[in-house]
Amino acid sequence: MAGTAGRNGGLRGGIDLGGTKIQAVVLSRSDQVVGEARRPTPTEGGPQAATVALRDAIAEAASAAGAATRSLAGVGVGSPGSIDAVAGTVSLARNLPGWEGSYRLAERLAEALGCPVRLGNDVEVANLAELRLGAGRGRGSFIGVSWGTGVGGSIVLNGRQWKGRGAAGEIGHTVVVRDGALCTCGRRGCVEAYAGRNAMEIAARRRADRGEKTSLFRLMKQMGRPRLTSGVWARALEESDAMARDLIDGAVLALGTGTASAINLLDIGSVIIEGGLGIRLGQPYADRIAGAMRPHLFVLDRAPEVVVAGLGDLGGAIGAALLVDAAPAAAGARRPPARAAAR
Amino acid sequence: MAGTAGRNGGLRGGIDLGGTKIQAVVLSRSDQVVGEARRPTPTEGGPQAATVALRDAIAEAASAAGAATRSLAGVGVGSPGSIDAVAGTVSLARNLPGWEGSYRLAERLAEALGCPVRLGNDVEVANLAELRLGAGRGRGSFIGVSWGTGVGGSIVLNGRQWKGRGAAGEIGHTVVVRDGALCTCGRRGCVEAYAGRNAMEIAARRRADRGEKTSLFRLMKQMGRPRLTSGVWARALEESDAMARDLIDGAVLALGTGTASAINLLDIGSVIIEGGLGIRLGQPYADRIAGAMRPHLFVLDRAPEVVVAGLGDLGGAIGAALLVDAAPAAAGARRPPARAAAR
Repeated sequence: MAGTAGRNGGLRGGIDLGGTKIQAVVLSRSDQVVGEARRPTPTEGGPQAATVALRDAIAEAASAAGAATRSLAGVGVGSPGSIDAVAGTVSLARNLPGWEGSYRLAERLAEALGCPVRLGNDVEVANLAELRLGAGRGRGSFIGVSWGTGVGGSIVLNGRQWKGRGAAGEIGHTVVVRDGALCTCGRRGCVEAYAGRNAMEIAARRRADRGEKTSLFRLMKQMGRPRLTSGVWARALEESDAMARDLIDGAVLALGTGTASAINLLDIGSVIIEGGLGIRLGQPYADRIAGAMRPHLFVLDRAPEVVVAGLGDLGGAIGAALLVDAAPAAAGARRPPARAAAR
Repeated sequence: MAGTAGRNGGLRGGIDLGGTKIQAVVLSRSDQVVGEARRPTPTEGGPQAATVALRDAIAEAASAAGAATRSLAGVGVGSPGSIDAVAGTVSLARNLPGWEGSYRLAERLAEALGCPVRLGNDVEVANLAELRLGAGRGRGSFIGVSWGTGVGGSIVLNGRQWKGRGAAGEIGHTVVVRDGALCTCGRRGCVEAYAGRNAMEIAARRRADRGEKTSLFRLMKQMGRPRLTSGVWARALEESDAMARDLIDGAVLALGTGTASAINLLDIGSVIIEGGLGIRLGQPYADRIAGAMRPHLFVLDRAPEVVVAGLGDLGGAIGAALLVDAAPAAAGARRPPARAAAR
């Protein structure tokens, strides 16, 4: 913090750039959220429009904290797609409307805000927040399972994120059914093919088109959502919609199987359920994932605890703000192009 | 080595205690094999008889190195079963004839040899040898896949074995086919259910009993083996035995799938194929495992190299000798009771 604390008492901004919404927070020096703002991700206008929305969101959060953006120590952005933290670019963010090529987001946003901007992968920064300030505190080693649009993951060993060559944690692309369902990544039988919100939406549409009854799409319209968001799934489950229940059951089974395999490999004692859907469905579903792990655990008498993320919806934005503390080169490794977004 | 090098120039003994054979080596201070001996594991007499055979094997290897066992800096033993390195006990070594309960092997063998004895898990010590002296040298991070009686594994991150809570590396018990074949561990669809030599032998017997043709059991008798050893499988493959080929194909597929999932999780660049069957079948089969991984790799343009262990059949005994260098408490964590032996 030595280099940044001088600006306005070390206030840091963080933005979680999601496929449907932008969440901004301002963190105090003691890591308290002292300002926040939320707005929808623009559905048109591509990265330029998104940059304007990001600027407006963090400006509103900063204002709530009594600060101007130019006085922030910096702003971190957690984004889907392929992040080059050093170059400050976001590429192949297929979850973001109209974002096809590579875009110099850090540079453009820094110009608009008058303060430094750092980028990180959305799943990684949400996990970083859990590690430092959320359910991961004091847990040492854990697997973060990000259950959202896709299924991502993070591995924390002895208090540090293990990134491998830059793309570690792809628990969503561990295989649970060889030659199984087609995954959005193009391979077969991955956890994400059963548990990713995108994959579940595709399956729900196919079943609805075949005439199977469901309230999912009616609820989607009622709630004014363009897609089956976590809120839509949660509402359908509350209404005991049979198809929603069946698809979520399949997701829980896949998540449990893949997570158990990861635990058998790493033998660590904690799993934190992160991601939009995981956080929305909460601890009851974390408990169900724990149950789905049991048939596959090699050391059953040391079954890991499975807890839901502690920071809720704000975790991604808080983790993005923590990027400001990191040295630029350590803010995040270059991600491979095919990295699926999991929030 | 400070505490041990004084005895006979730092000669260390190492023994690989397997289900069918005992392999002993003596390592010089510069880690050269300066003596070796091999004998069958006694099929009767339980741990007491095994202790006598271990004593005789290491005495013969020491004699070949021009030393008496009491002048060795110490002797390490790599054993299947549940190892308590601190207490010096081996329990539940189901692969060893008549070894049902817990046995104070370190104490008994030390009395017989007149030098300190340290115990380690067989898969872990073989991997340690590869890490320090074999294919793992200079590779930094790798996954060791031990393909033998069972399928074990080891994870090396930044040059150190990652042991988790003591049982990490169970790549054999990652799930590749949910609700798939019954595994020797009692669960379903594990890699080991398809690729473990025990599981393959059970499958071969069942198919032969149903009238399917195979040369496997004829070769077993011709070679004077009580079980389908790695040598029997290799011979049957050389003879193009259709059942052997089919079962090995299934094993390669399961190993490739499970290993690819592990790589997706950890994103590291090397896989070392260890274990009796892996070493016996050699690099051509390591290449086939690499091929079976490809459909499941998340970052295909950085597919890991897959190489066979560099120390061959002696790796287990060499790794056991390296235990002598370790501080007692670090020689190996307590293993869970259900740990399957993979050699």
